[in-house]
Amino acid sequence: MDWKHLELELIVLRRDFHKYPESAWTEFRASAIIASYLNRLGYRQLSLGLDNIDPQSVMGRPDEAEIDRQIERAKAQLPESCADGADFIDKMQRYPGVVGVLNTGKDGPVISLRFDIDCVDVNETVLPEHRPNKECFASVNARLDHACGHDAHTAIGLGLAKSLIEKKDELRGEIRLIFQPGEEGCRGAYAMTQKGVVDGSDYFLSLHIGTGVPSGSFALNSHGHLCTTKFDACFTGRAAHAAGAPQEGKNALLAAATAAISLHAIAPHSEGSMRVNVGALSAGTGRNVIADHAVMKAETRGETQDIADYVYKRACEVINGAAAMYETEAEIIKMGSATDADGDAALAERVGAVIRKSDLFGSILNDVPATGSEDATWMMRRVQEQGGQALYMVLGSDITAPHHNGSFDIDENAMINGVRALDIIVDELAK
Amino acid sequence: MDWKHLELELIVLRRDFHKYPESAWTEFRASAIIASYLNRLGYRQLSLGLDNIDPQSVMGRPDEAEIDRQIERAKAQLPESCADGADFIDKMQRYPGVVGVLNTGKDGPVISLRFDIDCVDVNETVLPEHRPNKECFASVNARLDHACGHDAHTAIGLGLAKSLIEKKDELRGEIRLIFQPGEEGCRGAYAMTQKGVVDGSDYFLSLHIGTGVPSGSFALNSHGHLCTTKFDACFTGRAAHAAGAPQEGKNALLAAATAAISLHAIAPHSEGSMRVNVGALSAGTGRNVIADHAVMKAETRGETQDIADYVYKRACEVINGAAAMYETEAEIIKMGSATDADGDAALAERVGAVIRKSDLFGSILNDVPATGSEDATWMMRRVQEQGGQALYMVLGSDITAPHHNGSFDIDENAMINGVRALDIIVDELAK
Amino acid sequence: MDWKHLELELIVLRRDFHKYPESAWTEFRASAIIASYLNRLGYRQLSLGLDNIDPQSVMGRPDEAEIDRQIERAKAQLPESCADGADFIDKMQRYPGVVGVLNTGKDGPVISLRFDIDCVDVNETVLPEHRPNKECFASVNARLDHACGHDAHTAIGLGLAKSLIEKKDELRGEIRLIFQPGEEGCRGAYAMTQKGVVDGSDYFLSLHIGTGVPSGSFALNSHGHLCTTKFDACFTGRAAHAAGAPQEGKNALLAAATAAISLHAIAPHSEGSMRVNVGALSAGTGRNVIADHAVMKAETRGETQDIADYVYKRACEVINGAAAMYETEAEIIKMGSATDADGDAALAERVGAVIRKSDLFGSILNDVPATGSEDATWMMRRVQEQGGQALYMVLGSDITAPHHNGSFDIDENAMINGVRALDIIVDELAK
Amino acid sequence: MDWKHLELELIVLRRDFHKYPESAWTEFRASAIIASYLNRLGYRQLSLGLDNIDPQSVMGRPDEAEIDRQIERAKAQLPESCADGADFIDKMQRYPGVVGVLNTGKDGPVISLRFDIDCVDVNETVLPEHRPNKECFASVNARLDHACGHDAHTAIGLGLAKSLIEKKDELRGEIRLIFQPGEEGCRGAYAMTQKGVVDGSDYFLSLHIGTGVPSGSFALNSHGHLCTTKFDACFTGRAAHAAGAPQEGKNALLAAATAAISLHAIAPHSEGSMRVNVGALSAGTGRNVIADHAVMKAETRGETQDIADYVYKRACEVINGAAAMYETEAEIIKMGSATDADGDAALAERVGAVIRKSDLFGSILNDVPATGSEDATWMMRRVQEQGGQALYMVLGSDITAPHHNGSFDIDENAMINGVRALDIIVDELAK
Repeated sequence: MDWKHLELELIVLRRDFHKYPESAWTEFRASAIIASYLNRLGYRQLSLGLDNIDPQSVMGRPDEAEIDRQIERAKAQLPESCADGADFIDKMQRYPGVVGVLNTGKDGPVISLRFDIDCVDVNETVLPEHRPNKECFASVNARLDHACGHDAHTAIGLGLAKSLIEKKDELRGEIRLIFQPGEEGCRGAYAMTQKGVVDGSDYFLSLHIGTGVPSGSFALNSHGHLCTTKFDACFTGRAAHAAGAPQEGKNALLAAATAAISLHAIAPHSEGSMRVNVGALSAGTGRNVIADHAVMKAETRGETQDIADYVYKRACEVINGAAAMYETEAEIIKMGSATDADGDAALAERVGAVIRKSDLFGSILNDVPATGSEDATWMMRRVQEQGGQALYMVLGSDITAPHHNGSFDIDENAMINGVRALDIIVDELAK
Repeated sequence: MDWKHLELELIVLRRDFHKYPESAWTEFRASAIIASYLNRLGYRQLSLGLDNIDPQSVMGRPDEAEIDRQIERAKAQLPESCADGADFIDKMQRYPGVVGVLNTGKDGPVISLRFDIDCVDVNETVLPEHRPNKECFASVNARLDHACGHDAHTAIGLGLAKSLIEKKDELRGEIRLIFQPGEEGCRGAYAMTQKGVVDGSDYFLSLHIGTGVPSGSFALNSHGHLCTTKFDACFTGRAAHAAGAPQEGKNALLAAATAAISLHAIAPHSEGSMRVNVGALSAGTGRNVIADHAVMKAETRGETQDIADYVYKRACEVINGAAAMYETEAEIIKMGSATDADGDAALAERVGAVIRKSDLFGSILNDVPATGSEDATWMMRRVQEQGGQALYMVLGSDITAPHHNGSFDIDENAMINGVRALDIIVDELAK
Repeated sequence: MDWKHLELELIVLRRDFHKYPESAWTEFRASAIIASYLNRLGYRQLSLGLDNIDPQSVMGRPDEAEIDRQIERAKAQLPESCADGADFIDKMQRYPGVVGVLNTGKDGPVISLRFDIDCVDVNETVLPEHRPNKECFASVNARLDHACGHDAHTAIGLGLAKSLIEKKDELRGEIRLIFQPGEEGCRGAYAMTQKGVVDGSDYFLSLHIGTGVPSGSFALNSHGHLCTTKFDACFTGRAAHAAGAPQEGKNALLAAATAAISLHAIAPHSEGSMRVNVGALSAGTGRNVIADHAVMKAETRGETQDIADYVYKRACEVINGAAAMYETEAEIIKMGSATDADGDAALAERVGAVIRKSDLFGSILNDVPATGSEDATWMMRRVQEQGGQALYMVLGSDITAPHHNGSFDIDENAMINGVRALDIIVDELAK
Repeated sequence: MDWKHLELELIVLRRDFHKYPESAWTEFRASAIIASYLNRLGYRQLSLGLDNIDPQSVMGRPDEAEIDRQIERAKAQLPESCADGADFIDKMQRYPGVVGVLNTGKDGPVISLRFDIDCVDVNETVLPEHRPNKECFASVNARLDHACGHDAHTAIGLGLAKSLIEKKDELRGEIRLIFQPGEEGCRGAYAMTQKGVVDGSDYFLSLHIGTGVPSGSFALNSHGHLCTTKFDACFTGRAAHAAGAPQEGKNALLAAATAAISLHAIAPHSEGSMRVNVGALSAGTGRNVIADHAVMKAETRGETQDIADYVYKRACEVINGAAAMYETEAEIIKMGSATDADGDAALAERVGAVIRKSDLFGSILNDVPATGSEDATWMMRRVQEQGGQALYMVLGSDITAPHHNGSFDIDENAMINGVRALDIIVDELAK
């Protein structure tokens, strides 16, 4: 493997993804480029879009008109070099995401690796010192920015696809490269898991760049992801003239306000921390009209799945009760969800041994605390429930601003050792 | 009829009722004295207690232990002169109230007259200038006071019983003298009406003393009584240690608090005024325990029965929704109710003609606005629905303080003309 | 006066205003056309824009960037025939509105007539049967529609200007034609009144078309306008990550929700009806961020100014208290206001006499109840406080849909008799 | 020392305290017996009642009428054997509690030991199998029960007083035996600390019986007591007839309800757990009267003093803001408070060494988690701030029911080793 050349290729790939960021469930351009790239490498077992998704389990997907617009934009933004991209998009059946399988034809373990490909819904900074601005790969899509590093994850996934297929004959078993849409808001992993994309895996691996770990370091086991449910609650009442016929109204604004306060008053749990937040509320239209609709964006979190289930159940009771108080109807729509699977210590030890031997990193961390929620936990939990082992690692990279901030940028030179580390780990597991 | 002698007797009777006031549904002593008096006069058709009450329709009655205590007290406070009082109490079957019927044996109209007999739950003033204190007939029952004038109503009812039976032979038809328990809080009339005590009446009459009309005046038609429902809402949750296991609790205090606020936020009605009040709220016990119970005393009112129904329906929705928000159970118990029947103008005119001719009063008022709610409206409405006519009159009397105030006292000399007015009216209707 | 010709001119004028509707405080095109028209007629005493406005008293005006955009649009939409329009706009100093004074030079009363010129913020229907669509004068400005008839009021005002100046020599005293911006939302009259535009008037007249009065009828005295205050309440808190540092947040969403519920729970007033409505609430942005801002659009109303003052005072207390509960700051911005002045019966009688004599209308109504709030009441009250007389009349017109509905249209043939009626009334008052 | 005899004496003492339990700030009988006992032993340096209390810092004390009643009862319940008890009570100046000082006259450390003497406000069970019932020492004071073991603490304190004075000549320095009122509800320690009773101490020791540690065990260092503030919030508004003049009311019930909900909605803290509870709420009187008063019993807790301060500060803001919303006044009265001082590891080690050597206990535990809040923490913190060391230990005892339950009873045989352990520790520290 020519690692020197791959180092450059990773940067080119990452910058291309960075320039054309796509939000959850609309990563059609990225998926097309991934499919085209894997196809060119010789991955014949490719499954696209809806083939990897259980549509009943999808959360937080835009409406069909928006999907139409995004497919159109994706096609328009495809590079000339990706001649087969539009065809791949058509095969996706309106859902992004790609799974490429490397079947060695020899008995051996099934190893699944997950790379998330979506961006964040923030504006990228226009400050000239921001490297994407200086070097002309800043986002061209308004209000969208790869401010979480998934552009690097995607590039690393493609780099690994290349290194693995070159040494296919040395490997055993089956390797699945899962390019997942919609990690932001915890929207995509659950629907892929329910479709079965990690079923039968002996090992599951995922990795995140940055998150506080500096360049030159590698963390074996990021644990403590918070269980969470993201949801919208929509209240539907009946409008009426507030002075002329107030008794005719069914006040969705007051129902939502009542719910919002009591949601924050859900009793704490003695077995661990939990959170509730109603982050946004929008209700009504005219000043002199009783509001007939209200929408709140909310989320619940818990240190364990039990606590998270408790607080979400209570949230639903609060919302439905408040709706009933005002004769309104409430609909609760799940917009995202993550659970709290932890990595396997045995796998962390085994991975740690080979990574240490490799001398790729100046510092190897064992356990590092997670910094939020992550929906790869659904895949980890599924694999663990089926008897396999799972690990969520962190590839160190200096960052220029916190994740999700418009000034966020990574250390691009860190990417190559991410590929090499995964290459070594697969080697160890599939030898 | 010796009106001079009756004038004194009314004062004696009234002072006796005043000294031994009894609250709604516990007027056993008063009922015994009424029954004994009517019996002595020769009223053979007496129905007592439960015989006049539909128990399913009873509202705001104390629990059985309290009824036991009150029966015991009533018997203990009976005057020696009322030797048959205790027997009458036993025949009441734990419900007070008396209906005495004067059947003339001749064809003619059925005339029902209603007198309310209960007191108010306030302490009578101890100020020496208050006449009941000066002249030794102040309430001897703690926290109970005839501060609304029902002691006078009862005395007037008995006086009328006497005057009518003396001239029985001149009358036609049937005259019912209804001594009703529980007017305060609008608790008693509905259950009597449901039992049928006014069914078949051609005329229904009631009268109130005072209410702003001065001595020497008489008002023919007091109208505009507000429809109201009095109710308690009891929330039952589950206690839990607030620090040790808050998630185990079901917070009845927060459910009640949430309900209280939104009850006051029920939208106004464009067709007339309405009121909601949560007058009292009591919840929880220990500071560090999640409250497992809460009780609120509330009332709804409306200018018309439709508006009252609207606001009561909304109140129930608010309470049940708030209970559900906190996983608690709510029970709504009706404690009282009144509707909005208005007197018949034709009857007012007819009554006005004879009262004017009588020269009993210096001033005759036609319509006067009602000053609150009154459950005789249930009887008025029933009679009117069956084709009869009804009238709610006011007997003028100077008063020393507002009704329901511990310093309230009436002008006792006003009573005799109340009897004479009713006597004349019955004469007119039953001649 | 050639009334036949004027009838047609009114229709042409009204259709032009209808096609280019302008919202409160942005009626620059309409004001330019009015000024140009009056100027052409010979009105030399014209005062424009800011000269008629007390800027401290302005309510509900858009921000300066929006004013810029609207001035630009107004100029672009001026007809070629109005060559001096852009100059007039420049003289307005960023505030619309025109007052034209006809000074007869002879002693006599000061008569002020007010015409409101703004449109409503609704979309005009696109249904082909709607006459403005059929006859090509539908609104070309998105989300704006003359759905209240102020296009007709403006045309009538110009028609009256024409008829009056033709018979200037027959008149005495001074006649002020006040073309007021921002009646919708009760935004403009108060600032004009505070500037003194009606000061010194002996008579004040205003008229509305439609409002339930059919074509061929005329109502002398529309009374019972509700006092109202329209206001926005803006809550400013502090954002924080809802899971990572909730204690750092100052939750503007919860402050606003708490305020909204208790605003609706303001106690009713025993002396008359009142209303509170929070019609719209918008708070927060991200689902996982504690909301740092919230804005509610609210209004309070009262049957009398005292009641309106009570409810607005209570509303301010509720908002400020709720803000303090959550460590947030609340700013309350008045967006509009009207009071409850009633027309003078003596003036109504005098006007009624001449209108009846005129035979212009098949039916003359005396008192008609007002259908909402109206800020001409500020002008009426000012004139009455200074000893003058005021009247708010209704010019009957069949309408195709309720006022403020996108399908609203008037009976254009009704306009001419509006001009003639005013002409007769001025004649009567200024002869 | 005759430990065998003392073992029996402890049981007799404890059963006497158990039979006559006294609630916080009313422990006059217990204080009299303690003073009398110490005096008899030869403790000449006794300070009583108010001499040990800073009255400004007192929290949760009953009103003076109740103090009168309790002093009277205490005197009536004194045993004949305590002839000087009534005199001691008179010297207490209406505040209970005793500090006895053993001054050895030799240089050496100051050692303070604290024993809490109050009972819990619960009814003792009447079940016959409950030993206090079987053996005739059940509480004779209604609604009061030594259900937390402070009867044993008091007996142990007296036993220690006896053992120490017997070997006074072997000791150095000064030993303070602090018998504290009002530990329940965290009411008494703060006022003693503020008065300076532990000032100048080199060592501070306290011990609790039971709390989950079984008979035969001893725990050296109970840590993690939650910081807490107990408080009552009183809202004062203005009553008004809810139907007749609602606008005159200032609704204390709604103010309190609004506060209660938002108190529970105070945002969690990222640095540790916290709790808020409104355990009881009582508001208003009459159903048809706007409530003019409301009282809530509430508490806030935090894992650290910083968190506790945060949540108490927020609670005050919520209460005052809600009061202002309804034009009411809120008064917040602290009823109790504890902080979070932890024991000194060095002292625990030193104590552990001598306890282990003693063979008194089958099992010695090091750190055990605290089970709630404890106001000895104020004394610990004061001593530590002044450079001293502090320790809060647990004396194992099987218990028959959870603390604060009416069926709670201890293993009386465990008491003697509590005395012996303290005797050994004092020996170690004061040798």
